[in-house]
Amino acid sequence: MPSLSVTALAGVPEIGPGDHLATILGDALDASAEGVREGDIIVVTSKIVSKAEGRHVRAADREAAIAAETVRVVASRTHPGGTTRIVENRQGLVLAAAGVDNSNTPEGTILLLPEDPDASARRLCAALRARFGVALGVILSDTLGRPWREGQTDAAIGASGLRVLDDYRGTRDTHGNLLSASAAAVADEIAAAADLVKGKATGRPVALVRGLAHLVLDGLNGPDPAPTARALIRPAEQDMFRIGSDEAYAQGFADGQAAAALAPSAVS
Amino acid sequence: MPSLSVTALAGVPEIGPGDHLATILGDALDASAEGVREGDIIVVTSKIVSKAEGRHVRAADREAAIAAETVRVVASRTHPGGTTRIVENRQGLVLAAAGVDNSNTPEGTILLLPEDPDASARRLCAALRARFGVALGVILSDTLGRPWREGQTDAAIGASGLRVLDDYRGTRDTHGNLLSASAAAVADEIAAAADLVKGKATGRPVALVRGLAHLVLDGLNGPDPAPTARALIRPAEQDMFRIGSDEAYAQGFADGQAAAALAPSAVS
Repeated sequence: MPSLSVTALAGVPEIGPGDHLATILGDALDASAEGVREGDIIVVTSKIVSKAEGRHVRAADREAAIAAETVRVVASRTHPGGTTRIVENRQGLVLAAAGVDNSNTPEGTILLLPEDPDASARRLCAALRARFGVALGVILSDTLGRPWREGQTDAAIGASGLRVLDDYRGTRDTHGNLLSASAAAVADEIAAAADLVKGKATGRPVALVRGLAHLVLDGLNGPDPAPTARALIRPAEQDMFRIGSDEAYAQGFADGQAAAALAPSAVS
Repeated sequence: MPSLSVTALAGVPEIGPGDHLATILGDALDASAEGVREGDIIVVTSKIVSKAEGRHVRAADREAAIAAETVRVVASRTHPGGTTRIVENRQGLVLAAAGVDNSNTPEGTILLLPEDPDASARRLCAALRARFGVALGVILSDTLGRPWREGQTDAAIGASGLRVLDDYRGTRDTHGNLLSASAAAVADEIAAAADLVKGKATGRPVALVRGLAHLVLDGLNGPDPAPTARALIRPAEQDMFRIGSDEAYAQGFADGQAAAALAPSAVS
């Protein structure tokens, strides 16, 4: 029966600016009981990629950093503890605080997301494939909130060497019905599975996922274009929730007032 | 190192109205190579629970069924293929078509979600705990779309016997920083992991997840109140995306016009 295993990788030290992550992870994989096999997928918490890439910022500059990473404010809400801002950031992700992170960081510092998570995943994947001589996939994960549901789940913000969407559209189920609108976001599901063993507070930033070789691409570049985690981001103009309810209402209200001012007889 | 395994369960036959699911799944678990151990979590595609509970509706009545399952329309968009309606349904879930399902169903029929997925999970969990004499957890999963990201992921719509949120708030990371706003939606992550082996088109509706015993509760009722998948649903009034952008804009526009009509001097 189909089966997968997810194992947190031991022996990953604290990562700092300039560290060669591919070598460090390769050594940790080499030393692990699991080793590396064809079709394995390595899920790496994006935070350690940020650390290796030196994406540190002084904690005192947090608000400026969030502003610099923000492309547009999607929604905000003020509550007794402060203001929660959901924004679209420079990587195209919609998330709180633009992905600027102040947990698991050295004192007095905060971290930006990797500049280009797909490019980071691609470099890591190419280096690990070269070292181990097998086709494997790499996912960079981050923790995202979501509308309508409590809590956060990990998702794929960078990916290389594997399909990120498993598209069922056009295939038939066991009853012969055509599956119409079904594409599983498998890279996000893999990131979520990895989070279950990595843990947030415990210094285990990497997981090895084994058993999903059918998602791993032979060539690193795969089909043309190669799948990226960017492909999991829905363009805002296609999104029914591209802006918060309060923000859309306020825009509508202002436009409604203005329209009435231009044509007052129409609403009187 | 922490590790988990996810295995699709063999030997689950096609389920029909009145089938005793706990017995069928218990027999399949008994016959499996994995068996059942303390701390296991069984993830059951909600569709087979619907089938056992006889939640079939004639396919010809699909639109009426969707309307009957809908508590409120959250957003809708018309496109060349028809209209996509995101609604809040009677189970409190926000999803397309109110959860009314026309894949993997006998010809001419569609399926409603289980009437009360948490209650279904609780019954199944109690029966399996009694049969095997171990603490285990049960999750009922369904496939949900999400704003901002392409594709769907499986999530927990019913749960019993396990914690659904792993709350890190108040704990410290390895650098001593207090983790402030971090509660992992572990039941959703487990449902997502299970989807990776279950597959949509292949008649494998149940997965056994092993290695997360720390999330499984000793007593079935656990803390008071017992965790439910309902706890993963954010109340609409607390949600910044409780209504679609277009819908909120239209409401605002109408209210803005009306306000201008009442006090025309204010905007002229």
